[in-house]
Amino acid sequence: MTLFLALDFGGTKLAAAMVNGGSREWLGYERALSPTDANANTDLEIMRSLIYSLLQKAKPGAIGVSFGGPVDATTGTVRLSHHVPGWENIPLQDLFREEFGVPTRVDNDANVAALGEHRFGAGQGYDSLFYITVSTGVGGGWILNGKPWRGAEGMAGEIGHMVVDPNGPVCLCGKRGCVERLASGPYMAQDAREVLGKEPPGRQEKRGEVLRGLVGGDLELITGKVVSEAAAAGDDLAVSLLSRAGWALGLGIGNVANLMNPQRFVLGGGVTNAGEGFWDMVRKVARETALPEVNFDIVSAALGDDAPLWGAVALAEEVLGVKDYRHQG
Amino acid sequence: MTLFLALDFGGTKLAAAMVNGGSREWLGYERALSPTDANANTDLEIMRSLIYSLLQKAKPGAIGVSFGGPVDATTGTVRLSHHVPGWENIPLQDLFREEFGVPTRVDNDANVAALGEHRFGAGQGYDSLFYITVSTGVGGGWILNGKPWRGAEGMAGEIGHMVVDPNGPVCLCGKRGCVERLASGPYMAQDAREVLGKEPPGRQEKRGEVLRGLVGGDLELITGKVVSEAAAAGDDLAVSLLSRAGWALGLGIGNVANLMNPQRFVLGGGVTNAGEGFWDMVRKVARETALPEVNFDIVSAALGDDAPLWGAVALAEEVLGVKDYRHQG
Repeated sequence: MTLFLALDFGGTKLAAAMVNGGSREWLGYERALSPTDANANTDLEIMRSLIYSLLQKAKPGAIGVSFGGPVDATTGTVRLSHHVPGWENIPLQDLFREEFGVPTRVDNDANVAALGEHRFGAGQGYDSLFYITVSTGVGGGWILNGKPWRGAEGMAGEIGHMVVDPNGPVCLCGKRGCVERLASGPYMAQDAREVLGKEPPGRQEKRGEVLRGLVGGDLELITGKVVSEAAAAGDDLAVSLLSRAGWALGLGIGNVANLMNPQRFVLGGGVTNAGEGFWDMVRKVARETALPEVNFDIVSAALGDDAPLWGAVALAEEVLGVKDYRHQG
Repeated sequence: MTLFLALDFGGTKLAAAMVNGGSREWLGYERALSPTDANANTDLEIMRSLIYSLLQKAKPGAIGVSFGGPVDATTGTVRLSHHVPGWENIPLQDLFREEFGVPTRVDNDANVAALGEHRFGAGQGYDSLFYITVSTGVGGGWILNGKPWRGAEGMAGEIGHMVVDPNGPVCLCGKRGCVERLASGPYMAQDAREVLGKEPPGRQEKRGEVLRGLVGGDLELITGKVVSEAAAAGDDLAVSLLSRAGWALGLGIGNVANLMNPQRFVLGGGVTNAGEGFWDMVRKVARETALPEVNFDIVSAALGDDAPLWGAVALAEEVLGVKDYRHQG
């Protein structure tokens, strides 16, 4: 029985878990928040403590690592983190391989989560799929011919910065109307704050009254999650923001369907908990945007926050040459 | 020495050519126009006559076929033609294999042209590329990991129906602002005719005077090619139409770069002859749309109208298991 160690550097949180090969139950699971003043060294130290607490004296057969940022998957070198300083060109794969003396593989979180869903979640049996996470950002990972497609330089999957409305609001990347600008949680919260902040006090019919109530009038407390909750409660402003998010995501998905013709889209991340109205919009616009001959379905991710960890297990299996436990006798 | 037969059902024209394996010179080349009242049977009869005229008593080792419409590449069955009636579910691969008694492979023209450019043209040495033809329509074909990516059901590559301006003009597909609606020759000609048809007679400063002159005032004679020529001669209306086409194509390419991260884009088709202004716009907008970390280049196709035929040669080689002549001793 081979023991696999799965690690997730998530930007704001760190997690380590271990599992016996072929099992779907974690043998152990440790997690910690990354401190707000974290750098690469502090994150590595915290992760080491999680690992040693988890392993005790056990020795894993292989290690898989999900990293929240661009990774050169051929060497397992982190290019950088958009959240935590000091990660520029860190040879993470080499570090763990040398420290633990076992085969290690590192890839970025969207690719790893796609692999996790493909192998253990909503993508099982689908050899071509696109996984999309709609959360604080919008990112994606490809499975083509049953294997990750990372692009020529590991940058594939960036549906978040597909422009779907060239006249839309400006995104941090400098362009207008990116999918991420319209569909990510923080941007929806920002747009909600902006609208509510401009409402003239005392006006009879205000927009977003439910939303305002949920944060007790303190607009700074509005997050993507709060916008989703307000929409579920019928708040007009929140519903319109989620409708626009669903439109942007649906248009992006339809464009991707025309371009790559995958069998399935798997959607995860907090924003996808926004309820049926959001999902209906995503599916409707995606179907209208794709050509009639282009078939696909759009389903919810099955593994939730554990998708990167399960994908890391799949990476660890791969590095040992374990093809797929489901197909073994 | 194996003789390969390459066939191209182009919608409006038919071509057949033959070549010795490993050679880059056609041994023979026959072409004919498809009559305006063509159907699948007449096209097949014309193609047969081209083939027998070409082969005389020679026997090919394998046949590769490019078809201008959706094809199920796993069986070589044509789904339909958008130009010629009667092609619904024609088992083209079986027909030729039985008639000539040799291995045959059929795929759609964009995929085949991509393969041709990859193997013999501007994509040599690039194992991930996207080929785009910008002509009467806008279509594309993928090479990933050195092999065609056709999608789950053979529909991949449809960049022409990626929406880049949801507020743009209506496309035949029913959506607004598709790349094809903004960048294909016939639509540019249509938009030029519409603008010129609305110009009030006798007004002092008219738009599109050069364009109008090129067709002697007969707006029905305006084609995409004429618009390109007028733009090259500095016509203001034509320049603005080609600028918008370059913008649409550049935005589409930048979106694709973010999504798939291929090494290279290869652009062919008549519209790409529109001159440096058009190319500058395509490259500028693509670069601005792609994330800074996403690298690629955009080059002109090398094989021109022969790309599908050379791709058909590559298909014929593949069906015989000839990997790549360049790598042989």
